[in-house]
Amino acid sequence: MSNLNTTNRQAAPQIVDKSQPQRILLVGASGVLGQAVQRHLGSRHEILTAGRGSGQYRVDLRSDASVEALLRELGPLDAVVSTAGGLHFGPLTDMTAAQFDSGLQDKLLGQVRLALAAQHVLRDGGSITLTAGILSREPIPMGANASAVNAALEAFALAAAIELPRGLRINVVSPTVLTESLPQYGAFMAGMESTPAARVALAYQRSVEGGLTGRTFSVV
Amino acid sequence: MSNLNTTNRQAAPQIVDKSQPQRILLVGASGVLGQAVQRHLGSRHEILTAGRGSGQYRVDLRSDASVEALLRELGPLDAVVSTAGGLHFGPLTDMTAAQFDSGLQDKLLGQVRLALAAQHVLRDGGSITLTAGILSREPIPMGANASAVNAALEAFALAAAIELPRGLRINVVSPTVLTESLPQYGAFMAGMESTPAARVALAYQRSVEGGLTGRTFSVV
Repeated sequence: MSNLNTTNRQAAPQIVDKSQPQRILLVGASGVLGQAVQRHLGSRHEILTAGRGSGQYRVDLRSDASVEALLRELGPLDAVVSTAGGLHFGPLTDMTAAQFDSGLQDKLLGQVRLALAAQHVLRDGGSITLTAGILSREPIPMGANASAVNAALEAFALAAAIELPRGLRINVVSPTVLTESLPQYGAFMAGMESTPAARVALAYQRSVEGGLTGRTFSVV
Repeated sequence: MSNLNTTNRQAAPQIVDKSQPQRILLVGASGVLGQAVQRHLGSRHEILTAGRGSGQYRVDLRSDASVEALLRELGPLDAVVSTAGGLHFGPLTDMTAAQFDSGLQDKLLGQVRLALAAQHVLRDGGSITLTAGILSREPIPMGANASAVNAALEAFALAAAIELPRGLRINVVSPTVLTESLPQYGAFMAGMESTPAARVALAYQRSVEGGLTGRTFSVV
């Protein structure tokens, strides 16, 4: 082409070499899934763990002040990963709006709050990875709150991706029930296939080291 | 068959003749969509309208007490339809968790609260119809809250349907931008096809008079 050697008028897109070690905040590292993500990503990246009651740093995802203080304290980050968030499980027939709201405030708004704050502190080209779950598409009895919250998180990532600045990306990992959690949850997930947390952890790597954004990585 | 004349040991399933006039509560009747639903369903059913500031009855979907008082006052209903609920629209880059929560509390939890209360007062075989919107799947800039809320409503109906007792049904109508609303919203929905509110109203009839449950009726 004739203009191969002319000066580009636009800056070249920033290429982040994601095979280099990244500095990653992992919120919710104490859970079964968080531990697997820490183990898997920790072999190649620097992982800073935070949680309500465990990890290297304390954070309450229900509080703007707590999330902002944590991000200020940690300084520059390449990725923020959340495997945190509680839901309300219980029969629809006696569910209250307050119970439903508890899942909205915790797993949904808690992770959204983290993402909204992270967009301002992540390095250019950084990533945000949140956790939803299979109930968004495959409901179970007593799971109406979980279905709503998980679907909201998937749609939030879909929408947020088209607005994030500076090459930032956002994805959601949406796993089926973990094999490790079958003793606790198996009775509620009749006939649903489980998968080991270590396999789900691959999806977090795909989000953190890959190039996709706005996606739900479904691991079933 | 040999047992055609034997006594059924189970009660016959209740067949509701939905071509008969139903007694329907419509919340949000003052909006463009609500007016179209009232016009369409009103030709064959008894419509009781309620809203925060208009309609025959006052109701605040953010309040358990207000919703319960309304349902107590109205007595037996065959269907509850909502076209109510506000969202937060604004750039992701300066969105706060409180702004995001305003849409959760209003359009999402407000309609969920109505559904949770309605399940206790609807006649056997009755129906609940809520309103979501196309942004659940087709995001636009400034629409992250809308995408999350609408997707949550769709998944809530999917999940609630498997638990509702007494033959009750629940569906969500998820329309594209209304032609009547283009002057107000068209600039935000670049290149998206609109549809007249009267066409969307058909989906409410389908939910109220039909047999489906747990469904999202997408009108695009």
